[in-house]
Amino acid sequence: MAEQLRLDFAPPQADVEEASRAMEAFAQRHGSEGRRVVLITSGGTKVPLESRTVRFLDNFSSGRRGAASAEYFLRAGYAVIFLHRHRSLFPYSRRYSNQNWLDSLRLMPGTAGEEPRVEAEPSLLPGILQILEEYEGVKGSGRMMALEFHTLSDYLHLLLAAARALSPIGSNAMFYLAAAVSDFYIPASEMPEHKIQSSSGPLQITMKMVPKMLSPLVKDWAPKAFVISFKLETDPQILIERARKALATYHHQVVVANVLDTRRSYVMVVTNTEEAKLSVSDEEESLGVEIEDKIISDLTSRHTHFIGQTNSP
Amino acid sequence: MAEQLRLDFAPPQADVEEASRAMEAFAQRHGSEGRRVVLITSGGTKVPLESRTVRFLDNFSSGRRGAASAEYFLRAGYAVIFLHRHRSLFPYSRRYSNQNWLDSLRLMPGTAGEEPRVEAEPSLLPGILQILEEYEGVKGSGRMMALEFHTLSDYLHLLLAAARALSPIGSNAMFYLAAAVSDFYIPASEMPEHKIQSSSGPLQITMKMVPKMLSPLVKDWAPKAFVISFKLETDPQILIERARKALATYHHQVVVANVLDTRRSYVMVVTNTEEAKLSVSDEEESLGVEIEDKIISDLTSRHTHFIGQTNSP
Repeated sequence: MAEQLRLDFAPPQADVEEASRAMEAFAQRHGSEGRRVVLITSGGTKVPLESRTVRFLDNFSSGRRGAASAEYFLRAGYAVIFLHRHRSLFPYSRRYSNQNWLDSLRLMPGTAGEEPRVEAEPSLLPGILQILEEYEGVKGSGRMMALEFHTLSDYLHLLLAAARALSPIGSNAMFYLAAAVSDFYIPASEMPEHKIQSSSGPLQITMKMVPKMLSPLVKDWAPKAFVISFKLETDPQILIERARKALATYHHQVVVANVLDTRRSYVMVVTNTEEAKLSVSDEEESLGVEIEDKIISDLTSRHTHFIGQTNSP
Repeated sequence: MAEQLRLDFAPPQADVEEASRAMEAFAQRHGSEGRRVVLITSGGTKVPLESRTVRFLDNFSSGRRGAASAEYFLRAGYAVIFLHRHRSLFPYSRRYSNQNWLDSLRLMPGTAGEEPRVEAEPSLLPGILQILEEYEGVKGSGRMMALEFHTLSDYLHLLLAAARALSPIGSNAMFYLAAAVSDFYIPASEMPEHKIQSSSGPLQITMKMVPKMLSPLVKDWAPKAFVISFKLETDPQILIERARKALATYHHQVVVANVLDTRRSYVMVVTNTEEAKLSVSDEEESLGVEIEDKIISDLTSRHTHFIGQTNSP
């Protein structure tokens, strides 16, 4: 199966073998307890332009969608493998990503010969008491495993490893492919070794298309799993058509389709038989409701139904 | 002077006018107290490939060099304008950038009807007592001002604004241009509006060269300032030659030249008359000595000398 990744890539930076073993153990442990396991991919992939990389092509993605979704999957009882881009947003801490957390810490003088203490000021960290309790609960339960990728090569190798690790639990596995994966790359053999010199004039780049991994994932790597892909467009006119085309091409279960400008307030959940619109109203937003809460609620129901169908004679 | 930035760019995302006013006030306040002011640029610039941007070209840079340097300039008594890429490393908090800071917080039950408290565990945050004290001191002194950029367009507009703001303090101003700035961009008029569709086949990108801003900065915008640029190469063979070429082209004072693989342990400080090698030995490294400590110590002496020359009759 590894041949499917014999692309002309530089070797991955991530330790794929170690990650494989960890994911296999994770899937086996939760699978044996009858728990569903979701692989969430999150953040953008880096595509190097030079083999000693100074420049790279990147995809817009803070990883907010994936990090928020992980929290709701955990609340729904799933075990979560969170495969994310290095330094992209992380579940729980993502809520404080726009602030310098040192600003919320205070030095408290130690009493009677004791060391000074460091306290966090809760008023500067909205909701921290609940978030910390939830985060500590998740850590204690062992239901979340986090893995990082940097480059497209890392991502593809880790996705294949995850698919193999989750294949044994059949339809209890879900793939929630929210990462913004590059469609293009420069083959390693065509890549300059050193930094491209700007004195050589304008830059001409020709990039090859990345083969779509969704096809072997659905057909060969984890054929019984429930698979969700994402479609982000800037032009709303072509959104549904592109989502339907993806379903027809890859034969997976769901496309979550969204438009760049409105991605936080509405998405379309597209399947072979329907299109469901999920949205967050202004009132809900002011109450802190997130679109990911609705997406995960919708998808976990569909997953239940999918498992029922698979297991029925 | 603004004509110099009439490049074919999308407008900056940053609020340049507000930033200008803030930098002017900052330079005036510190200048009137005879304090030196350094503008540090830090992190990589994003170059959009689409006007509603999904994809962009980026430069390798965590912003570690700039963030560390800011701390040493502050210790040396400088006032610091820290112009950095959104989400790149930040002074002080950069020391904990490889960990999830939620892991270091503990919920402490409140006593007798009090709210629970949140404490940080100092053993999980090495050096936090000293760092926090230093950070609080810097905040209290008003000697640091932080500004963010996202795109190349933001960066160039803010650099021009900074040069104008610092120009009145003459040779007391230093420019420490550590940001990894793209050499190439796609003119706004040649940019597709919507996301490039992968179904259209391989991607061909032609990028124009970004005009070097160092030239007008040194000549027109802040002609009396002490200006340091950085040269990062992957090939050590061409390093010094490239640094000398930059000095000859732009007529500024110093190039700090470094090689990608060894940038944390040695740099060359190149001027018109000499090359000084600065390095951190293994032993020093194990004691926590950082190369930026030596760079800033070297450059602040050179700055003193430069000011003396400028003021002598």
